[in-house]
Amino acid sequence: MLWIDKEKLLKELKKLNPKKVGVQFPEGLKSKAMEIADLLDYEVYIYGGNTYGACDVADEEMSFCDCLVHFGHAEIPMKFVIPVIFMEVYDNIDLIPSLEKNLDFLEKKGKNIGLTTTVQHILELKNAERFLKNRGFNIYIGKGTRRIKYDGQILGCNFSVCKSIEDKVDYFLYIGTGYFHPLGITLNTKKKVVAIDPYTGKIVDMENEKTKLLKKRYAVIEKAKEAERFGVIVSTKKGQFRMKEALNIKKDLEEIGKKAYILITGEIYPEKFRGFNFDACVISACPRIAIDDQPRYEKPILTVTEVNLLKETGEYRFDEIGGI
Amino acid sequence: MLWIDKEKLLKELKKLNPKKVGVQFPEGLKSKAMEIADLLDYEVYIYGGNTYGACDVADEEMSFCDCLVHFGHAEIPMKFVIPVIFMEVYDNIDLIPSLEKNLDFLEKKGKNIGLTTTVQHILELKNAERFLKNRGFNIYIGKGTRRIKYDGQILGCNFSVCKSIEDKVDYFLYIGTGYFHPLGITLNTKKKVVAIDPYTGKIVDMENEKTKLLKKRYAVIEKAKEAERFGVIVSTKKGQFRMKEALNIKKDLEEIGKKAYILITGEIYPEKFRGFNFDACVISACPRIAIDDQPRYEKPILTVTEVNLLKETGEYRFDEIGGI
Repeated sequence: MLWIDKEKLLKELKKLNPKKVGVQFPEGLKSKAMEIADLLDYEVYIYGGNTYGACDVADEEMSFCDCLVHFGHAEIPMKFVIPVIFMEVYDNIDLIPSLEKNLDFLEKKGKNIGLTTTVQHILELKNAERFLKNRGFNIYIGKGTRRIKYDGQILGCNFSVCKSIEDKVDYFLYIGTGYFHPLGITLNTKKKVVAIDPYTGKIVDMENEKTKLLKKRYAVIEKAKEAERFGVIVSTKKGQFRMKEALNIKKDLEEIGKKAYILITGEIYPEKFRGFNFDACVISACPRIAIDDQPRYEKPILTVTEVNLLKETGEYRFDEIGGI
Repeated sequence: MLWIDKEKLLKELKKLNPKKVGVQFPEGLKSKAMEIADLLDYEVYIYGGNTYGACDVADEEMSFCDCLVHFGHAEIPMKFVIPVIFMEVYDNIDLIPSLEKNLDFLEKKGKNIGLTTTVQHILELKNAERFLKNRGFNIYIGKGTRRIKYDGQILGCNFSVCKSIEDKVDYFLYIGTGYFHPLGITLNTKKKVVAIDPYTGKIVDMENEKTKLLKKRYAVIEKAKEAERFGVIVSTKKGQFRMKEALNIKKDLEEIGKKAYILITGEIYPEKFRGFNFDACVISACPRIAIDDQPRYEKPILTVTEVNLLKETGEYRFDEIGGI
């Protein structure tokens, strides 16, 4: 069950003593918006936009409020124009049963495990560590760069906790849902990755998924080689604003004889670009857009790191956002 | 053919002597973006968002540039954070043939015509006036409020030029495409409206269209009466930011026993609100969204003025944006 520390929220708000309070929710928590608004004894303004991470804080849009409560993500340290309270949202599901069920599988893979998850399950990670240690595994939980709040926590665009322990582990164990995060680990480290879904107990070796993804991405890159005119997209979202990278990409593309134009936008979705007639786009914002949403676009959509493969062969690299 | 005064553009830019130039295009001009970027001897940054009017200037998003060129709309006077050059885009189609073809129709409707169009054809309006005067009509071209740059110009949200001459005319003649603008006149004045499409020469008496629209809108309003929880949507777009109206609507809704929540957002499209579980929405931003896009929404979407009809019977009023 999803769990928000309402007491903490009320206490934090009391400290700020605001009149107008903005609240911002990721997609899966929007249905709680009215309940939270009813709970708060302030003038509440709900942010209606989409929110995919702590890189995506609506402090500018909500700057008419005295503060903003951003739900569902762990803080990424950035400068905001109004005080921002990050209310992480946890799922209190017990991770142990899904581990217990898969002990044999894990044993066969090796004794030295790099353990990782997303913020949703981060409070339960210690329990998982203890359980696995008791069963004879050596557990390593890495430390991240400044974009990362918790030991062991990964973002879809940051796998620094894994890299920090890469040489000590036989493989990484990701506990959580979806393939995007564990795929990111396979492409950002040289180690194998196993993913356990704590809701179903299903375990997956990510090697197959990695092969499937690379096949798809190389096909997109091949198609992009034929493109003449590229849109290089920069997001206005504060934690995804990578103008320097975008300008470098523009230069790189021009060096291999392509035309390239910098395009600025907030939300990124196919209808927005249809009118522009680019033959291909490079998205310097969230790397997930190119990889997850490609089927929704008519034209090739590349990540920042994929641009290198237009001009030379080399190892496939996943686009990671480090500094901001 | 669409026509941009490129010489004027280069002259205006030279005056500002910028390094970085932002350019912003409405949907129908996005295909010209690369051509314009190639023409300009500056660092060019294309705004990738959707743009539906001069109410929708991306000066904040593009504030890293030294100036912004906004194409396709006549200026609405507002404060911007960087210099904004409004480059109106004209269609140089001759309006006379479509008038000549329909002289009999116009004769039958009356001698006193209120002549109006959108900015696209505004340069040709004088010719149309002269032609009709020569054929014995009395032509009136109204003056607008400060949101309106040209005599005779209407916006989808402002019909002040029509109101200023309403008592002098037998009917209004709108020259342009689409039904939204002439429908707005029928609902904002007590006079009849005739629309001529200058491309096809087709003439339409808007009475029928008005009846059809009202029938649809009253059905939406009836459905909204059953709603319990309302989202009242405020756009962050500078020229559509109507917080005062939104707060009044919230109060009005609460007075008739509804729950109401203020929702802040930029772009407005159905996927954005799906997660929130409102039973109905009121859009304080562009009135066109509720009226044109209702079929795309699962729930009733009301304009600001339609909220009155939830609590009392009365004349249908079109939502007009005056001051901002």
